[in-house]
Amino acid sequence: MATRDTGLPMRIPPQEGAPLPDRVDIWEVGARDGLQNEPATVDLDVKLEFLDRLASAGLRTLEATSFVHPKWVPQLADAEALLERLDRRAGVRYPVLVPNERGLERALTAGVDSIAVFASATESFARRNLNRGMAEQYAMFEPIVSRARAEGLAVRGYLSMCFGDPWEGPVPVDQVVAAGRRLRDMGCWQLSLGDTVGVATPGHVEAVIGAFETAGVPTESIAVHFHDTYGQALANTLAALRCGVSTVDASAGGLGGCPYAKSATGNLATEDLVWLLDGLGVDHGVDLDALVGTSVWLAGRLGRPSPSRTVTALGTTASSGG
Amino acid sequence: MATRDTGLPMRIPPQEGAPLPDRVDIWEVGARDGLQNEPATVDLDVKLEFLDRLASAGLRTLEATSFVHPKWVPQLADAEALLERLDRRAGVRYPVLVPNERGLERALTAGVDSIAVFASATESFARRNLNRGMAEQYAMFEPIVSRARAEGLAVRGYLSMCFGDPWEGPVPVDQVVAAGRRLRDMGCWQLSLGDTVGVATPGHVEAVIGAFETAGVPTESIAVHFHDTYGQALANTLAALRCGVSTVDASAGGLGGCPYAKSATGNLATEDLVWLLDGLGVDHGVDLDALVGTSVWLAGRLGRPSPSRTVTALGTTASSGG
Repeated sequence: MATRDTGLPMRIPPQEGAPLPDRVDIWEVGARDGLQNEPATVDLDVKLEFLDRLASAGLRTLEATSFVHPKWVPQLADAEALLERLDRRAGVRYPVLVPNERGLERALTAGVDSIAVFASATESFARRNLNRGMAEQYAMFEPIVSRARAEGLAVRGYLSMCFGDPWEGPVPVDQVVAAGRRLRDMGCWQLSLGDTVGVATPGHVEAVIGAFETAGVPTESIAVHFHDTYGQALANTLAALRCGVSTVDASAGGLGGCPYAKSATGNLATEDLVWLLDGLGVDHGVDLDALVGTSVWLAGRLGRPSPSRTVTALGTTASSGG
Repeated sequence: MATRDTGLPMRIPPQEGAPLPDRVDIWEVGARDGLQNEPATVDLDVKLEFLDRLASAGLRTLEATSFVHPKWVPQLADAEALLERLDRRAGVRYPVLVPNERGLERALTAGVDSIAVFASATESFARRNLNRGMAEQYAMFEPIVSRARAEGLAVRGYLSMCFGDPWEGPVPVDQVVAAGRRLRDMGCWQLSLGDTVGVATPGHVEAVIGAFETAGVPTESIAVHFHDTYGQALANTLAALRCGVSTVDASAGGLGGCPYAKSATGNLATEDLVWLLDGLGVDHGVDLDALVGTSVWLAGRLGRPSPSRTVTALGTTASSGG
């Protein structure tokens, strides 16, 4: 009988249970969605090291920055400089957020090959976040997606407020599906369904994904983006995985939040997701210790601890190497 | 179009999805499992108010205290005084933990009608926690359960380290089932399967519950007790609910931890569980705002914030009434 009392990372062999995808692609949003919500702007050198560490930890999709106007998101005003200095790794994608035509110009000049647009599933949030209604948001995004595709770029469509909206309350599933289909019809290869304020629960997640499937949008083209405001992010992720979703957005250390929802805490922490996938025997390619070390290192730069449970649990050991 | 920007509790109508129990009984362990892990002993008046507020919030099973020797758990040394002063509500059960024969004597003298014994699924933890091996733990508990039942008491059996053990690593499912059956054969009406260090993931949960079912232990007699060390508690709970489990242990505000696992954080927060159940349309009888108000109030007494995401999100409003 072993008697090591590590009190520490005990990894249990996978126990699969109900059907799941063989592999999950983690779309790491920490450098964009995480850092854009930080009260202070993070130094460019720190951002570059953060992206480099994430790639070393095995993440293969790193949303790097955003070309939103610096007036709105000063935290990411260094987008051009970041992309110029970024040491791109083979096999790693570095998509950037593009809010409008001016953003697309900047992205094309910077030589990116993968972008994301950010649409709303509700009229209220479209007006708050984009300063235009839903019909107008499509009119704005259509030429962007069309031009980007003509230039050979892959375009992801974020759809925010897919479950609840703080101004409108619960969002009808049909409305979400209609908005998602508009993005697909424009040419977005993937939809990221966002629970922007974190109010969703697993049955609701199953209903929305099922409605997309019924409407002819294949589950392979769906990603999920959960916030942990009410502690539901990982349970919702499990529900999505059981539906066959195989792309999950997450943020190293649980960085980020929603500036438009007072109570919205961070994104699903990548580390907590990796713990889940390891336990379920789902391949993902990430070295958990290296990732935790990265989040502990970044937390030191930001001056406050990570909200991720897994980072908290493993951080003491992992940080010693970081 | 409504335009209230509450940034606050938006409750979404239930979306059930896959099959679930109609009702979940929440076994609230905050006053025992939570407070026994607090560094400082909480005043008896605060404990009594805590229990009273939990009952007012609609919780119907409140594990009130423990008759463990005060040398080991000084935080609960006031068990007799607490039970003497406790204002028992009609329809509310107040089980207490009983570690040994002396504890049973004290419980009987105090007039309790429901107890729980705390066994281990591993040899190492039995020796650490009970100072005896697994065979000896059964020998110790058998006369306690027998006498308690003869006195008309209901006896629950906690089984700890059902998934991983910090000294032994992953715990074989067969070993867990064998230990659980021993407790059932003794006369425990319910088994609470504990992930004491918080390492379980949902497929593992399904495997353990399925193995009990195969071994003839009905799922109706199974409860689950998850810790959120790696952020998995609510996802594991969802997996258990999908298996048909309808009793879930939780701790108001996520109070508690495991003193034998350095990295083990608190129990599943009752508030996060209630948010899940509300979203799934599963009945539970708890008033979430009253419960959040209780956790905010207790956090003030303990001098630190609740780790529950839901308490953090709703706490500002709820506390104004508390």
